[in-house]
Order: sequence, then structure tokens, then C-alpha cells
Amino acid sequence: MTQNAFQDYLLQASQKVNDYLFQSDVVDYLKPDHIKRAVLSYLQRPSKRLRPAVLMMSCGAVGGDENKAIGAAAGVELFHTWTLVHDDVIDNDHLRRGEPTVHKQMETIAKTEMGLDAKLAKDYGRDIAILTGDVQHGWCITSFIDCASANKIDPRVILAIIRYLQTHVLNMLVYGEVLDVQFGLQKKNIESIQEKDVIHMLWLKTGILYEFASQAGAMIGLNTPYIDNPLVRAVKEFSSNCGIAFQLQDDILGIVGDEKRLGKPVGSDIREGKKTTVLLHALKNASSAQKARLLTLIGNNKASDDEIEEAKQLLIDLNGVDYSQRLAQKYLDTALSHLNALRASRYKDLLKSWADFMINRDL
Amino acid sequence: MTQNAFQDYLLQASQKVNDYLFQSDVVDYLKPDHIKRAVLSYLQRPSKRLRPAVLMMSCGAVGGDENKAIGAAAGVELFHTWTLVHDDVIDNDHLRRGEPTVHKQMETIAKTEMGLDAKLAKDYGRDIAILTGDVQHGWCITSFIDCASANKIDPRVILAIIRYLQTHVLNMLVYGEVLDVQFGLQKKNIESIQEKDVIHMLWLKTGILYEFASQAGAMIGLNTPYIDNPLVRAVKEFSSNCGIAFQLQDDILGIVGDEKRLGKPVGSDIREGKKTTVLLHALKNASSAQKARLLTLIGNNKASDDEIEEAKQLLIDLNGVDYSQRLAQKYLDTALSHLNALRASRYKDLLKSWADFMINRDL
Repeated sequence: MTQNAFQDYLLQASQKVNDYLFQSDVVDYLKPDHIKRAVLSYLQRPSKRLRPAVLMMSCGAVGGDENKAIGAAAGVELFHTWTLVHDDVIDNDHLRRGEPTVHKQMETIAKTEMGLDAKLAKDYGRDIAILTGDVQHGWCITSFIDCASANKIDPRVILAIIRYLQTHVLNMLVYGEVLDVQFGLQKKNIESIQEKDVIHMLWLKTGILYEFASQAGAMIGLNTPYIDNPLVRAVKEFSSNCGIAFQLQDDILGIVGDEKRLGKPVGSDIREGKKTTVLLHALKNASSAQKARLLTLIGNNKASDDEIEEAKQLLIDLNGVDYSQRLAQKYLDTALSHLNALRASRYKDLLKSWADFMINRDL
Repeated sequence: MTQNAFQDYLLQASQKVNDYLFQSDVVDYLKPDHIKRAVLSYLQRPSKRLRPAVLMMSCGAVGGDENKAIGAAAGVELFHTWTLVHDDVIDNDHLRRGEPTVHKQMETIAKTEMGLDAKLAKDYGRDIAILTGDVQHGWCITSFIDCASANKIDPRVILAIIRYLQTHVLNMLVYGEVLDVQFGLQKKNIESIQEKDVIHMLWLKTGILYEFASQAGAMIGLNTPYIDNPLVRAVKEFSSNCGIAFQLQDDILGIVGDEKRLGKPVGSDIREGKKTTVLLHALKNASSAQKARLLTLIGNNKASDDEIEEAKQLLIDLNGVDYSQRLAQKYLDTALSHLNALRASRYKDLLKSWADFMINRDL
């Protein structure tokens, strides 16, 4: 399958999910106006809707009808969305998909529409963002539920999916987020971190939700409440490994990627001191002089552009980038091997194209 | 039924709910340690568990087995708990059930255990509290789901209950919370507020969750997914009106109640300028001099104890307290009239005792 055909599929899938979301009766529940605008905010911004697409492809790949999984696909997007809104408050990020984060957006509205001073406006933005995530969390559950009633999916299948999401997935994501916060605060010695710790964090923060999307799609496709079904496990393992490959690639692009396509300034990961497999491997290969130099450059948020370039070159020369590329490929190969359990189909080809897209994308 | 027998029932019901909660497999998912401590924090503090008890009584009152509803009863307590944790962040409250709120508790831990400075510790406390509410929200859904699998309740009943909770109830509560925040910020002229606005807010912030608890209990007791079932509607209306009576009584006690039993300083509602039916009715009966005086005293957070006493006396003399007591009784009478739809039973008597407790309690 060509990447063009895959991109066409993504577009169609995201259109289906968008139609479902914006025509939902839940939109009428959103009150007052600031909550409504905040809840819809991220959903209305351009997005590839990769998680919903993975859910629908996985449903199709086990022989199911992807149209029966649209509610669940919208549900996984809503789940992702509420975690973004709350994480943005926690990380105090200002931009999301190129526009202000919900708490910043509402802070501005508090100033312009309500005439609040800076301190009160900041609190108001935070308050609305907390409640916005809560409402999206509720909407997420509703979307999964409606998947049962609208499509003759056994309600036990949906209950099993929601329970897994609300115990395993939610708690692992929160665990990852708290570790991340604690990590940032405690400025742990970078040399005490091991590659498996970095990979575990990539899995907690990204892999697990892709894994869940595939698992849910396959359970709906097979109309089974059993997460141990061999086909369910196959697509789950496929997506879990793809998710890790995706994040490894993300870390590489954060160092050698193009600013315009990346959507963030070149060098920001280096200035933040992000712990990546690129960095860990480069440190392993470095002479003591190179190691000392790298540790001065990495995590120095006042590093000049020349210093960023120097760090980047060291990370490349010490084989960090090359090593991480091979590591991502290894995860991808493992992912693809799990697809052997599936019969040939257009959806199987789509999943392969997605895997390819995950590490060959340049943005 | 005597109030003693009712109190005995409350104790038994809360014991069942506590056993269920603390033996749940979800406890093992809570990670890392700070999340676990924060998620369990409010649940481990003394509480009457009124909402779970109402759910279980409503299940029994329509002829069901209350033991089949314990998971749902735990679910409604968890729902209440996550809204408390997030509301405490939003309202920046420092105490809950006599101990520090979750964000304050975690702020202290961040200082003592992690050695963070004041600013970082405050952020950390807030971050953990946001994620804590999120985890409790997930646990709430899980508890409802387990109610289906463990007790042969039709999964469609549980899906209908969860959907109602996650659309109608959640959005109404958020609506109430945002109106409350906006209200506090905009210092709306008190004389433009009508009694029906105050009652609506009481319903949004309290009535609706009691209403839901009864509705869910009755649906489980009858094993029906139909919220329009006449018995379901009867107990729902009963609890809705009781919830409003409870809050009216709360507002009265906030003015004339005893400090020790109230758990907050006498006069704090007056100093905060809380908009109550007591105040609205007193203003209606006031001469222009009395009105001017009341408006000076109410909402003045520097009011002396003598001024608080003066305000309290004015609210009593102008019939505000007496009027609100009669209003609470009116809601209670309406509530009790809905019980006529139920057959005589111990649970019907328990519900009556609960109604009595709601407005005759002195704490």
C-alpha cells in the first residue's frame, strides 16, 4: 500500500470520528459557554486522529466492521484529549497544536471578557481547564457506551474495554506523568538512568494508549470480552511496539529534525535536558572530555545556537542517533512480526503502512 | 423507626462500602506512592457515607437486594470524592473533614519528603491533586462496572446508569461549579438574585448527586435500564427534594449553628457573603436602613464577632431563618409524598428516617 493510500484512509477515518463527535448529543450538555468552548477546543484543531484510526484499523484487521467501532474510536480520542488538557496544566505548557493550551486560552478570555486581573485570570484558566478535562473524561466513557447500544456489540465487551481503560491504562498513564514530574524536580543524575527506564517511560506515556486502541478495536471487531484472545493480543503487541518506535523516532527528530515540520524550536529537547536513548548511547561512547562537554551542554536552557549545534554534532558523532534509529527499527520489526497472526486484508496492509509512517515520517 | 436504628443502619452500610473499597483490586493499580496516599486520603477519613447509603436504601425500597448494589454505592462515593478533590483545588480550600485537603497534604509532603521550595511544593500539591481526582473518577466507573459482573445485574442497566452519570450528572455538577466560580468573581449585586436561582444552585451542587444515587439504586433493585420507570422516578424525586432540604438546612446552620458541631467558625458564611434564602428573605422584609446595614455586614471578611452577632440577629428578626426552615420543610413534604408510590418496608422507613435526619440534624 502506498503512503498516499494510507493518508487517504487516515483522512476518511478522522472525518468519520469528527462527524460522530460533533453530532453527539453530549455537545448539548456542555454548559456554560466557557466550558463548551474549552471542551471542544482541542477537538476542533487539526489533528491526524492517529489513535482512533488505529482502533478502527485493528477492528477491520480481525475481520470486524470499522463503522461499528466509530464510537470507541471517538472515545479513545476523548481520553487522549482529557489527558492532554490536564497534562498541559501540570506541565504549564502554553501551546498545543500550534494554538494556546486550554488554561492559557481561558486565562485570556478571563481578562478580555470578564475583565479579571492577571492573578485571578490565571486561576480561572486553570479552574476551567481542570473541569474541562473532567467533562471530556465523562464524554469518553459515554462514547464507548454508545458503541454498544448503536451497533449490537455485546454490552459485556464494552464493559470489559472500559474497565481496562479505567484501571490499567489510566493508572499507568498517571504513573508515567507523576514519574515525569518527580524526575524533572529531582534532577536525577543522568548517568544513573538506564535505557530500559527510558523505554519504560516512552511506553507509559505513549505506547500504552496505542496498545489500548488496538486492543479495544480488535475486541469490538471480534465482539469478545476476552483480552487474552490471540488476535486481540497480536494487534495489541503490534501497536505497543509501534508506539515505542514512534516515540524513539520523536526523540531523534527532536535532535536532528527540521524546525518548521517539528512545530517546536530546534534544540528545545537539548535545552530541556530530555533523557533520550540518543543521549544515553552517546554518553556510553564518549571519552571523559566529550562526556563532560555533553553534560554541560545538555539541560542548559541558556545554550547558544552554536552550542546546540555542537551538542547535536556530538550526539551524531558518538553514534547516538544512528543507534536509536536501529533501536526504533528493532521495535518496528517486533511489531510487524505480530501481524503474522492476521489474515491478509486491506486493514492488515493499512496497519503495515501505519508502522512505516511511524518511523519514516519526517514530522 | 428511631433515629438510633437509622444511625445503626448508616454504620452498617458504610462498613460494607468501606470493606468493598479497601479490598478492591484497583488499590493495587495506584502508583506511585504519593498517588496511592492521595487517592485513599479522603476515603480513609471519617464520613457518614450518606450517598452510598441512599443508593442502597433506594435499592431495597423498590424490593431489591442492597448487597447487589454495594459496588454502585462505592461508585457514587468515589464520584463524590473526585469532585471534592478537584473542587478543593479550584476553591483553594485548606481543610476537608477536619484534615488538610489533598493538594495541601501533598504540598506539605513535597516540602518534607522531597525538600522542594514553597513555589514548587505548591505546584506539586496541585499536580498530584488533579491526577488524584482523575484516578478516582476512573475507579468510580470501575466500581459500577463490577456491580454488573459480580451480581448478575443486566450489563445494560449498568451502562444506562454510567451514561446518565457521565452526561447529565457530571455536566450539571460542572455547570454548578463554574457558575459558583463566576459568581464569586463577578460580585453580582445580591438584590438581583432570586430565590429560584439559589435553589437551582443548591440542586446543581448537591441535590443532583443524591437524586442520582437513588435513581441508580432503584434501577439496580429493579434490574431495569429505564430511568422513566415509575418507581425509579419516585425515589429519584424523593431524594432530589431531600437534597435541597438538606442544603437549605445547611445554610441555616451556617448562620445559627453551633461552632463545634459545624466544623467551621461561626460567621464564616456571613463573612464570605454566601447567598442564601435566609439572606434573600431577610432583605425582602428589611427597612431601607436595615437593608443598608445588612449589606455592609454580609460579605465583609473583616467583620468583628459583634458585627457577626448583629447580622445573625437581623437575619433572625427579619424572619429569614424561620422562612428558610419552613421552605426546607416544604421540600421535605414534597419528598415524602413521592414515597407513597412504594410499598411498606424497612427500607421505606429508613428513607423516611433519612429525610427526617436531613433537616433535624444539628450538625
